[in-house]
This record gives sequence, C-alpha cells and structure tokens, in this order.
Amino acid sequence: MIDLRSDTVTKPTPAMRRAMAEADVGDDVFGEDPTVRALEEETAAVLGKEAALYVPSGHMSNQIAVYVQTRSGEEVWSHRLAHVVANEQGGTSVLARVLPRLHDSESGYPDAALLERWARGVDDVHRARPRLICLENTFSGLVVPPAEQERIAAFAHDRGMLVHLDGARLWNAAVELGETPARLARGADTVSVCFSKGLGAPVGSALVGDAAAIAAGRRARKLLGGGMRQAGIVAAGALYGLRNHVDRLAEDHERARRLAERISLTPPLGARARTNMILVDTPAGRAQELADLFAREGVGCVPMGEDRIRLVVHLDLSDADVDAAAERIAKAAAAA
Amino acid sequence: MIDLRSDTVTKPTPAMRRAMAEADVGDDVFGEDPTVRALEEETAAVLGKEAALYVPSGHMSNQIAVYVQTRSGEEVWSHRLAHVVANEQGGTSVLARVLPRLHDSESGYPDAALLERWARGVDDVHRARPRLICLENTFSGLVVPPAEQERIAAFAHDRGMLVHLDGARLWNAAVELGETPARLARGADTVSVCFSKGLGAPVGSALVGDAAAIAAGRRARKLLGGGMRQAGIVAAGALYGLRNHVDRLAEDHERARRLAERISLTPPLGARARTNMILVDTPAGRAQELADLFAREGVGCVPMGEDRIRLVVHLDLSDADVDAAAERIAKAAAAA
Amino acid sequence: MIDLRSDTVTKPTPAMRRAMAEADVGDDVFGEDPTVRALEEETAAVLGKEAALYVPSGHMSNQIAVYVQTRSGEEVWSHRLAHVVANEQGGTSVLARVLPRLHDSESGYPDAALLERWARGVDDVHRARPRLICLENTFSGLVVPPAEQERIAAFAHDRGMLVHLDGARLWNAAVELGETPARLARGADTVSVCFSKGLGAPVGSALVGDAAAIAAGRRARKLLGGGMRQAGIVAAGALYGLRNHVDRLAEDHERARRLAERISLTPPLGARARTNMILVDTPAGRAQELADLFAREGVGCVPMGEDRIRLVVHLDLSDADVDAAAERIAKAAAAA
Amino acid sequence: MIDLRSDTVTKPTPAMRRAMAEADVGDDVFGEDPTVRALEEETAAVLGKEAALYVPSGHMSNQIAVYVQTRSGEEVWSHRLAHVVANEQGGTSVLARVLPRLHDSESGYPDAALLERWARGVDDVHRARPRLICLENTFSGLVVPPAEQERIAAFAHDRGMLVHLDGARLWNAAVELGETPARLARGADTVSVCFSKGLGAPVGSALVGDAAAIAAGRRARKLLGGGMRQAGIVAAGALYGLRNHVDRLAEDHERARRLAERISLTPPLGARARTNMILVDTPAGRAQELADLFAREGVGCVPMGEDRIRLVVHLDLSDADVDAAAERIAKAAAAA
Repeated sequence: MIDLRSDTVTKPTPAMRRAMAEADVGDDVFGEDPTVRALEEETAAVLGKEAALYVPSGHMSNQIAVYVQTRSGEEVWSHRLAHVVANEQGGTSVLARVLPRLHDSESGYPDAALLERWARGVDDVHRARPRLICLENTFSGLVVPPAEQERIAAFAHDRGMLVHLDGARLWNAAVELGETPARLARGADTVSVCFSKGLGAPVGSALVGDAAAIAAGRRARKLLGGGMRQAGIVAAGALYGLRNHVDRLAEDHERARRLAERISLTPPLGARARTNMILVDTPAGRAQELADLFAREGVGCVPMGEDRIRLVVHLDLSDADVDAAAERIAKAAAAA
Repeated sequence: MIDLRSDTVTKPTPAMRRAMAEADVGDDVFGEDPTVRALEEETAAVLGKEAALYVPSGHMSNQIAVYVQTRSGEEVWSHRLAHVVANEQGGTSVLARVLPRLHDSESGYPDAALLERWARGVDDVHRARPRLICLENTFSGLVVPPAEQERIAAFAHDRGMLVHLDGARLWNAAVELGETPARLARGADTVSVCFSKGLGAPVGSALVGDAAAIAAGRRARKLLGGGMRQAGIVAAGALYGLRNHVDRLAEDHERARRLAERISLTPPLGARARTNMILVDTPAGRAQELADLFAREGVGCVPMGEDRIRLVVHLDLSDADVDAAAERIAKAAAAA
Repeated sequence: MIDLRSDTVTKPTPAMRRAMAEADVGDDVFGEDPTVRALEEETAAVLGKEAALYVPSGHMSNQIAVYVQTRSGEEVWSHRLAHVVANEQGGTSVLARVLPRLHDSESGYPDAALLERWARGVDDVHRARPRLICLENTFSGLVVPPAEQERIAAFAHDRGMLVHLDGARLWNAAVELGETPARLARGADTVSVCFSKGLGAPVGSALVGDAAAIAAGRRARKLLGGGMRQAGIVAAGALYGLRNHVDRLAEDHERARRLAERISLTPPLGARARTNMILVDTPAGRAQELADLFAREGVGCVPMGEDRIRLVVHLDLSDADVDAAAERIAKAAAAA
Repeated sequence: MIDLRSDTVTKPTPAMRRAMAEADVGDDVFGEDPTVRALEEETAAVLGKEAALYVPSGHMSNQIAVYVQTRSGEEVWSHRLAHVVANEQGGTSVLARVLPRLHDSESGYPDAALLERWARGVDDVHRARPRLICLENTFSGLVVPPAEQERIAAFAHDRGMLVHLDGARLWNAAVELGETPARLARGADTVSVCFSKGLGAPVGSALVGDAAAIAAGRRARKLLGGGMRQAGIVAAGALYGLRNHVDRLAEDHERARRLAERISLTPPLGARARTNMILVDTPAGRAQELADLFAREGVGCVPMGEDRIRLVVHLDLSDADVDAAAERIAKAAAAA
C-alpha cells in the first residue's frame, strides 16, 4: 500500500531511531530531561518566541493553548473546519468550556469585514465574550500570508483578544514561502507545531509562546496528564526531525505538484496541489466510491466530504512511490 | 413609549397581581408549595407530558434540558440563531460542556438532507458524538409544522438521539395553528415553555418531559441555584397567565398583522408579520439608524443585524397602541 | 405542626404580601425594574459594599461568588460542613470547577496555624493553586468574630487570595453582636446575604461586593439562568424584610435561648442555643429516632448526624409556639 | 547523587533501549501500531481484564478512569492523600467535574463503618450523588489486602457505584504478597498500572477494564490529547519492563528493608520499610532540614509533611548504592 492518507503515518528513519536509542534522558516532570530541554529551547528559538513546551500530540498543544488563554464561557473564533474545533472531539467545550464561533472562508482565515461584524455587540449580556482567534497554517494545505496574520493579530490585540496559530504544518508553509518559521509565527501569541507530521518523528508537538503562557501551559499539560517521565527518548526523534527534515519538505511539495498534474490528466478526476497535499475532485457524490477504488489499487487516501479526496505526500515516499500512485489512481479512475 | 422590544416587558395585570398576593405558599425546596405544584401539574397536562418543573427563566429551562440529556463532550444540533446557543452566553459550553453544531436553514429547523449529512461518520474518534437536536417554536415568529417536528424526532430517536423543543412561544404557535400545545409538543423529549412572554406573568418558565427527565432536571435546578423557597408567589402569576392568557394571543397576532400591513405601506420600509412578531426590512445597513428614529418617536424596538428591525406585540398593547405605533413609525420613516 | 426545621419555611406576612402586590416593576434583564434596583442599592449600602445583585437563591449567590473569583482548577478553602461545599450538590466542581480543601475546626473558621500549613508548597505542579477562602457567618448558629475574619482576610490578600463570606444568616450575627452588617462584612471581597431565611421574604438572596465583582456576577447570573423578568414582585418582599425584619431577630434569639433552657431540663436531652438555632444532643445514635418522636408530637426538626437534632426559631413563631414546642418535646423525650 | 526521590527517576536499561530502537511501529491513532497493541493485550491479560489502553502517564490514566465512570456533579470517595485527588492538580474538578469526598484512614482504604455512614442520605437534593470509590495499591508503600478490596467492591456494586484502583505500584503489591496482579485487580472496574515507576520504562501507563470502559477511555484519551502517533517506540520500553522487571521488584523490597533497618539504628531517625519505600521519621518539624542534609551528602529524597521523609528504592540502585545511601544518611543524621 502506498499510504497517502496523512503525513502522520511516517515511521522513524534509521538515523532517527539511533538518535532515540542514544538519547540522554531524565525525569521531565522534575524538569530534568536534557533532551526535552534542548528540544524546547531549539523550538522556541526557531519560532522566535520565548519558550516552548513538548507535549504528546498536536491535539493537546491546541487544547492547552485555548485553555490557558481563555476563561470559561468566552468565545473562540475559528474556521468551521479548523482542527481545533472540528477534529478534537469537542475538546474546547469540555476543557476550556468556550463557545466556538465559526466562519467558512475560502482562505481559511477571516477577512476584515467578518472581524468587524463579529466584534459588534460584544457586551450584550446574552452573548459570550470573544477572547481568542484561532488560525491554522497550512490550512488544508493552503498557506496563510504573513501580512494577513499580522492584520488579524492587530485587530485582536486592539480589542484585548489573543491569537493562537495551529502550525502543525507551519514548516510546510515556511518552506513554500521561503520564509523562516519565526516570520510566520509573528503576531500569534501562541503557536502549536508538530514533529510527527512532515518532520517524521514518532511522537509529539510543541506549544510556543511567551514565558508566562508557556508556564501556564506547563501546569495545564500536567492537568491533562501530558507530563511524561523520560520523554527524552521520543523528544530525541523530534529534535532529529527539527534539525534534519525541515528543508527537505520542498521535495514533498514538488512531488505533490507532480502527482496533482498527473491526476488532473485522468478524467473524471481533477486535482490541485497545495504544499504537500493534493485535493482530488471527484464526480459529485462519489468521493467514497473513488476512495475505495484507490484503496483497492493500493493507494491509501481519505475522502473529504462528498466530492473530494485528500492525498498527502510525506517523508516515507520516494519519486517512484509517487509515480506508482499516479498510475494506480489512473487505473482506479478508469474503472470508475 | 410604546414598547415593542419584546413580549418580556409586560407587567402583571391587576387580576394577576391579586392572584399572587393571595397565593397559598410553602417551602418549594422541601416540595411543599401548593401553588408551584399546581402550576407544574397543570403545565405538564397542557403539554401532554408526565411532569413539569418551574424555573426562574427560560434560559435556565433550556440549559437544564441540555445538561440532563447529554454528557460532556457530546454534540448538540441547533439553528445558528436559536436562543439556546445564541443568546444564553455560551452556557452549553460551560454547563453541559457540549459542542454546538449549527445550521442556518430559512425555516429554523433542519431538513432531511442536512440530518442525513450530519449523521455520517459519527463514530470517528476525532469527532464529538451527536446527542441532542434542539428546535425552537416559534422561531423568530415562525411556526414549526408538527409533522416536521415528528419527522426530526423519528430521525433522532432512531439513532439514540433526543429532541429538546424551546417552546418559549409555543403558545403562539398553538393559537396560530389552532392546535393544542400538546400536539405541538409531540416527539420532543423535553419542552421549555415560558410564562413571562406572551402570557404576561412576571417570572418563570417550565421544563416538561417524562418523569425521569424532570427528576434529573429538579436536581439540576438545585445545582444551578434555581430552587426558590415560597415560589408560589410568582408561580401564582404564571398559573393565572396559563389559565387566562393563552387564547387571547390571537389578538396579538391579529394586531401584528395589521401593524405589518401598515408598515409595509411606508417606504422605504417593508414588513411581514409572523405570529406576534413583525420583521421590518430597512434599507441596507440602516437598521440601527431606523431603530434610533423609531425610539425618538416613542416606539421601542430591537435591530436584528444590519437590515432588519424586530417588533413584538404583547399583552400590554391595545388596538390604539398599535395604531399609534404605526403612525409614529411612518413619521420616523419619513424622516429617514 | 410547629415547624422548627429551618427559618426558610416562613410565609410572607400580610404587610409583605401587600408590598409585593403593589410593587413597581419592569424588565430586570434590561435593568429596568425599579424595585430590584432599590433592593440592590439598599443591600449594598447596608453591607458597606459598592454593589449588589439580586438572585433567586443563596445557593446561586454562593456559586456565583466562587465562579467569578476563581479559575478552573484552583483551590477553595472551606469548612467541611459549609453550605457552599456540603449542601450545594457539588456545584463548585461543576460550575467553577475548583477543588475544595476542607477543614473541620470547631469554630467554623480556620485558625492561623492551619492557614500557614495550607499555604506551603502551593507552587508544586502536582497541586491545585489556592485562590479563595470561604467563611460562613453564622456557621450552624455560631457567630464569627469580626477580628477573626479580618485576620483571615489579611492572610488571604497578602497571598493574592480572596475571601467570600456566606452570610445567609449574617443578620443574626449582627443582631447578636450588636454590630452593623457592614462591620461583619469587612475584609470579605464578596458577601452573600439571604432574604428568605430570618427576614421572612419568599424568594431571594443578594451577592454584594465591589463593582467589578458584581458586574461579573451579573453576567454569571445570566449564564446560570438566574435573570428574572419582573422580579420586582419578589424583590419587594425582600426589601420589606430588609427594612422591617432585621431588628426583630433579637426576639428569635431570645426565644431560642428560652427553648434551649427548657429542653436542657428534659433528660435524656441536652441543648444549647446559638443565635436562632438550638442544637439538641440526643443519646448516642438516636437522633433520627428522637426526631421522629418530635414529629409525632407535632414539632418539625432536622437530625444532624447521629447524635444531634437542629431546631430553628423564626418569624412565624410566637412565644406561645415556642412554649408549646418545649412541652411537646418534653413529652416526646419522656416517651423515648 | 544516589536518587531516592522516586522510582520515576529510573533510566532505560541498554536492553530496554534496544527494544525501543527496534520496535515495530505504526500510526496508533489509526489503531495501527503493533507494539502498542501487543502491550495493551498483554497488560489486559496480566490484569485479568478484557482490555487495556496505553496512555502517556498514570495521571492521565486515573483522570480518564474518573471521567468515563462518572457524570458531572457526582461524588468520588478517596483517601485524602490518594494521588488522584492530592497530586493531579485538582483534575477531577476540571475534567470529570466530580466532588471528592475524602477520608483519612491509616490503611489507605475505607472501613465498613465509614462506607455505611457515607452511604446515608444520598438522595438528598442538596448533596452530590456518590458514584466511584478510588483505591490505591500500594498506598504510600502499603499493600491493600485483596479481601478488603473485594469487600469494598461488593459494597459499591450493591449500590450502583464503581471502583477504580490506582495500581501505579500494583506490581510491588503483587510481588510482596506473592499474588498475581490479576488477583489484586479483582473487584475493581478499572485499574491503572504504571510502566515507568518500578518497571523502569521511560514513558507510560495503562488503564485496564472491561471492553466498554476501555472503548470510552480510548475516546477520552483522544479528548485529552493523549493519542500518540508511532507510540510503539515507547510502548516497546513498557513491554520490555512488563516482561522483565516485575519479579525483580523483590530485590527492591529486600533493599528497602535493609536500608530501613540501618536508618532505624541512626538516631534521631526512625524508619520503616513498606514494599519499595522507606518512611523515615525525623524529630518534630525537622523533615525539610534533614532532607536538605541528606541532599548535601548526596542522597536525594522527598520530605512528606513536617516530620517524615520518603525514600524510594528502584531499578537503578544496586546493593552498593543502598549501602552507600545508609552511610551518607548516618553522616547527615550525625550532623543534624
């Protein structure tokens, strides 16, 4: 099976396994794991923020960001399909107890008119008070322009609101734009980055922000049960990925473009590449059927709604894999 | 001022005040208030359900319904503008800790296609599990057809989901359709009805449902601090309204129709009556400005968004008041 | 039945009923009820605080105080038997989501050594952070000395903690000490007072504090569903009680003393009066049995644990009632 | 430094590191990690339960157990010092929103009289309803007799309550008693066991129970952000510990006994061994001072309250280490 379901399916490389096997560790609940410390410091530096916190998952990183930056009963603004509201099991209601307010913009982020409209009447006693704007970069493969994020952050900060950026694939956005991750983190009060997607590490994400937010996040991580003892074992894999697997994401993007081009020549399918993702348009209502056909030919994928399939290119795929995937998809399409 | 902001502004009539002054009372936390008991029994009977619970507000009634019929982290389906999600301060996130999933249908209730679409993939570990469908009747003055509610209830019950009906203005719907309130409650597991809107009582709503739901609701009312001691004083006003002010809602609807007709002859305004509400269409973006002009002429109203004003007819208004309101609005429109 | 179960069982007097029947009212959710406003202003003044908020119950008043003065996951210190933790259905876990830390002092309030001990190690990542100290005055009839409350408040404020005083029966404490309620409120950041216990009103309590706390409380009251429309009806009863029924509590205390004396002459019972309460000591393990015997003779009471019965004197009892109660209890004791 | 602070400080052995480096992994969020599956199946079998769930920490395991086995507002019974209520940051209030009810028994578990007393009056609307009894084995090194646990479980199940056993050190109890872990799990509805304390693995615990509880727990783990991708890396260390490090705990207990004997010959200290822990009694109020002296001599330890120090023996200590620790402690005591 050529697994294009997600970039989370990658397995550690031999070099990464070696780094983990040899990791210097300690009890991280006592703050004594040197590898975790190194990872946190290096991640904070790369993002241009004061501090970072290593956590078991991007899900936990996002939920901690919302928990420490809101009070119960406040409102969080987000895209309807953002991971933090759509794929984390309603966690913002259970943990932070905030009310999501959702938009549906094409770009993934709110435009100025929407922000203005939503900011009206916020002192009404019937309404939850807005506190946090959540962004996601990349959003379904789409890059958020840094200037747009800074505009949104300025709006938020003017009103006493904060901004959290879910940057699970911020590395992809940085490579695509040729910008540093720190540039793309600007304006965000907290940023979540992931080591186990594009970077290929087995476990973990980090939340970065200023020292106070991360200190609060450290308490919240403990609250949620995310404190791990000799976490340096897996942090070593994350550190290896951070040091060695960011620049190479350009290869994934190039492969995604090539794969999208080939699929777009395969009627009845259409396709567009967005960083390391390919969105395949299927005939109306046939996404699941086509996904099943792809699987039968040995290509793993995920249907998104009724008319679209998502493919994700990652570290474990070679040029040959991508070519083979294109052929198998063509075969599946022909059979459709 | 002719106050058309809401039917919540009514003041108790002399007869209602007399009923309250003479009410037989006891300690309702010990279950010993005869007037509260009578109100609860009569309300349950009128709605065709096993039991009822008197609470200080419709807000509390709705929140209790959600709290006792869900578990933390489940999903509640509702219209985006339904009171339970839009006007109760994000309470479903704080109290029941559920995730709202919101539609935007014209009718106020979900059609079959939407229900089918939302029911897909509900076992996905990334998603909150759906548990409760909330309906509202009337919804912004619109009546929900009983057959539609029964269709939705059948869908819900087939999937282990429940239905809560916010019937703050169910009395209006019943009078408009010439149906009993019990007919309109059919299919709903719990129904919230209000005594202080159309019925003119000073304080209170009731939650009705089967005995188990109401027993759980009684505990939840205590939890929220809604247990009142000699509540019979205000329950007497509610009981008076229930016995004497339901049928007369037909007058409000007739007055609303007349007022809407007159306003629709007043350019640049348009207007439609829906039960006891009139939605006034203003030129684009000028709702607030017109509402201020209305107020200056002595007509209280509430702008809804950018292009619309809501007027509500109620017990404290006579034919003369409604005629005067129409004249004042015409004057305001002429000045616009 | 001579009902000595609680001072919550009182029924409104004719004069109080008249005040309610004639109350000037408005829509309090819009802030337009003049009677509610008058009650809130007068209560704040009597307690020497900036602002007050009328709520349906003392339970809600306490829960709002905890909710607005803590964050999720913080620690609240209280006596094990204080109403806010022992008799409000675990509400502090559900609403404020705080962790109670409980002592068991004879006096009802913590001594200096206990505070010092509990203040140690509060930055430990394994522990909840302390935020609020809850006091109760009277506590099971016992008066908290003002100097003790000020000592505790000084301790709290030095450490960034706050103090909430559950003063459901603060009026009794004030009358007993010959101090003003404002004197007894000193040091407390918020105080809850009740109109439906000693003061005899049918419904309601108030939370008082500085303007910011009460503004937050007003939002929280809405969140919990405690916003009532023409609440002036019941607020008029509360206002009547506040103006007319405070000083007369001295009579209740005098009657309680007399009743306790008579019971203490009735073997096998012992008795002590504390303000308006009498604690009756029964032979070991026989509290429930004796309470049943009292009831058979027509005296309502509440067993407290295994060896003690609580009697409460209130507005609806005359000297003759108290004498009759003493006789009936003697008869019951003789039969035991 | 000879580190006797906790058995959480152990570092993976070379063989354990090898097992992790060579682990077969997959995406565990998709249920595709063979090593995690093997660990979960083997752990469930060892505990005699249907299913198990691998989680990042014992803290998360306990919190999930409480979350899935209670509803908001219910009561959980526990020892005042049990980890789940005393060392998890008030998590039961934030996550499950339950009210702790705490005892202080010498043994660590409730006796029959306490259970009977606490079971009274549970339908009172003022009180939280009891749902879950939490036990801990070992509790501060003390073993819970299996018959006592079965008595408590019978009591609970008769009343519709459940039992959670925090068995972070259940392995120690089993070895000490010469019983199987499954024997010690009997009666408990869920059991949390830890791989990173006595068993020496770097990361992780497991929650075990029947299939329904563990399926609910799997959702809750995702909710809390505990889903890890290629978790097989660290699960391999846990599996190695489970297979190779249980029986050897007898050595730790023997060393703890020897160390306690030597310390008890060192005035002014007293000492008792309990499984792998030694409780050192210090002169009154001098625990912190002595702990600092121990540290200066190169012995890491944790003061427990004012008069007691805890030492923990573990996998990373040899006979020589323990002898050296005894000598250093004697030197520190002499200097005291």
